Amino acid sequence: MKRAVLIAVGSELLRFGRADTNTVWISAQLDRLGMETVARVAVLDEPAAIVPTIRAAVEMADLVILTGGLGPTEDDRTREALAQVLERPLEHDAEKEAELRRRFAAVELPWTERQARQARRPAGARWIANGVGSADGLLVDHAGTTIVALPGVPSEMKPMLAAHVDDWVGVSSRQAVVLSTLRVFGRGEAAVEARISDLYDRPGIDVTILSGPGEVEIGIRSVADRRETAVLQLNATCDAMKARLGGDVYVDDKRSLAGIVGDLLTERGETLAVAESCTAGLLAAESTTVPGSSRWFRGGWVVYANELKQQLAGIDAATLERHGAASEPVARRLAEAVRTDCGADWGIGVTGIAGPTGGSEDKPVGLVHVALASRDATQHWRTLRPGDREGVRRGSVAFALDCLRRALIGSAR
Amino acid sequence: MKRAVLIAVGSELLRFGRADTNTVWISAQLDRLGMETVARVAVLDEPAAIVPTIRAAVEMADLVILTGGLGPTEDDRTREALAQVLERPLEHDAEKEAELRRRFAAVELPWTERQARQARRPAGARWIANGVGSADGLLVDHAGTTIVALPGVPSEMKPMLAAHVDDWVGVSSRQAVVLSTLRVFGRGEAAVEARISDLYDRPGIDVTILSGPGEVEIGIRSVADRRETAVLQLNATCDAMKARLGGDVYVDDKRSLAGIVGDLLTERGETLAVAESCTAGLLAAESTTVPGSSRWFRGGWVVYANELKQQLAGIDAATLERHGAASEPVARRLAEAVRTDCGADWGIGVTGIAGPTGGSEDKPVGLVHVALASRDATQHWRTLRPGDREGVRRGSVAFALDCLRRALIGSAR
Repeated sequence: MKRAVLIAVGSELLRFGRADTNTVWISAQLDRLGMETVARVAVLDEPAAIVPTIRAAVEMADLVILTGGLGPTEDDRTREALAQVLERPLEHDAEKEAELRRRFAAVELPWTERQARQARRPAGARWIANGVGSADGLLVDHAGTTIVALPGVPSEMKPMLAAHVDDWVGVSSRQAVVLSTLRVFGRGEAAVEARISDLYDRPGIDVTILSGPGEVEIGIRSVADRRETAVLQLNATCDAMKARLGGDVYVDDKRSLAGIVGDLLTERGETLAVAESCTAGLLAAESTTVPGSSRWFRGGWVVYANELKQQLAGIDAATLERHGAASEPVARRLAEAVRTDCGADWGIGVTGIAGPTGGSEDKPVGLVHVALASRDATQHWRTLRPGDREGVRRGSVAFALDCLRRALIGSAR
Repeated sequence: MKRAVLIAVGSELLRFGRADTNTVWISAQLDRLGMETVARVAVLDEPAAIVPTIRAAVEMADLVILTGGLGPTEDDRTREALAQVLERPLEHDAEKEAELRRRFAAVELPWTERQARQARRPAGARWIANGVGSADGLLVDHAGTTIVALPGVPSEMKPMLAAHVDDWVGVSSRQAVVLSTLRVFGRGEAAVEARISDLYDRPGIDVTILSGPGEVEIGIRSVADRRETAVLQLNATCDAMKARLGGDVYVDDKRSLAGIVGDLLTERGETLAVAESCTAGLLAAESTTVPGSSRWFRGGWVVYANELKQQLAGIDAATLERHGAASEPVARRLAEAVRTDCGADWGIGVTGIAGPTGGSEDKPVGLVHVALASRDATQHWRTLRPGDREGVRRGSVAFALDCLRRALIGSAR
């Protein structure tokens, strides 16, 4: 496969911990065209850092894409660094300046002298038109590698890439790459791996197994000369893995757990209401990330204060006193009351200790009670979620949705 | 300032879009010690990609830290790549193997032959003990640069780094670096910049201005020989900016908007309840991300289905029919009803069109009505939030919290 290196230029990426989203997006575009990204780099906007980065990239890749550092200010050093790598002068393009002046005039933007920096390019580099902003891109061939520089603003960069990426990758050399992800909830990484590791070595298949919060993610990548072959390889491997893992696999595509639950409920024409204490709205919010969730999600209560547990769910003070808010009877009552009061087929109650304080020996931080009420019965689970406050809350939401998913497909937890 | 390059080795980072959290975390540790990270790299786990990456890193940095690729399997190639860069053989350390065998025996883990790979090191490299797992780290000096290789598992890497980072950075060479972030909600980037750009060029000060979802973030970095000087420089610049920006600045540290609102409410001994339609629990969940939020957050309703708007908030069918669910009267009634029913000092109601469907010419996707009820009065805002479904929902939550923040400090929107 042909190889790419993606370089995001920008001091804010290093100094203020800004996430670099450009290289991740570009990498996904190249994947689809059968080009492999071998490195993603975020680098300070100065030639002493950019120059060695480009040189190393040229050594390992057929295509190098830089984003950022093409603005009109003195902080923007990508043009200069590129000229140094090429060992060519940075030339002023009078025609480009005239064109930029016309573009500014057309939208009644005042022209400032520093804007003329955007008309400079390493000798021999070609311009890539920017249909949105004033930072045109640059393209140059060097030592057998195509080097492309694009602006860092995503709304400018994305259409520029989309318009030309086919040329840069080269149609003749493409291999087909298809990806799939299987997710498993409530089983350890080692236990999952033991069941499927003999399937890793199939030809054209690459498997990556990773633990996320409360789940294990199996990434499967299939590469072949033709797309049909890649898809066949991929499907055969996924099917074999799913046969081994059974009901533990909760998703075999990019749908979220909430999306899967929503689809199962929609098929059955059933609805959900939730009553949340420690997750305080997060389960409702996660359920409604899915467009169209109004078909199956009704709403519910956030009962953070104990008075609201009494008032909305009718839990009596004696129960709260005896068992505490994070307890089985409270979870059960929340699930049952929210189901009937909000007119839903299923009710979920969540209560627990999210931390960082409030834990005790009996009830440590991470202890969560989840109850699921249907017309016929109420089930209850006690679970310990790992991590910090957000980890416990997010883990509890995933756990609760997985309880409902398993109830809907008849797979025991 | 001394300079570092951080390299995360792992094919999953490139092939499955896994976020690399290790280099971001390490970068923050080095910041505190006055060492600048000039590049963060995620690279495929193979020598053809790792070797040129390390070489470029050595060229630009005093310290290079690699994470990942130290496991016992054939995918783990960091040791081998490091030996290639050093042009030294990869040696087997019999003593290390004996030690690893003892560690395995102590926890009753079976020893497999491939485990012995973890006892290999480039000639002359020193071991860095791993107190948690079996992947010990490596340290070597090369061409004036210190190169460190650590395991990729965060729970193993972090204590190893913490134990040694002082030695690697070198105490004598340190400069003090302090950072601050100002956030501004509801003003454009250009408008903010126009008010503060003349403050950018102060000595020792670096300013980065960036737009986030619905907000502008101003990053200020101050560098000096002594910490006191850096702090003085930073405070003077922040104070000058805050004087220019007034009530538009909503946070001058790492507290979230919910944290700021919570602190303001706690000071006054007041409480909040929320009723959410389009945000469906996200405002409640965001409020309770802050530990100790039970002091000021009571709870509320998720009224996703219109029946629940009627049933819980007492909104009559005629109002819903005439104005629609995403309307001023519904927002007002939600805020007022949830405030009184949940026994809070403040009530917020949010209703709108999160999309992607459900928009019309009159009521486009992104239209959100927010109402804020107090004992004395109810205020209402109509806003258009940009972005996709999640962007609209998250933007609405930030908007609603900022409305309450401004009401609490007496700053008009």
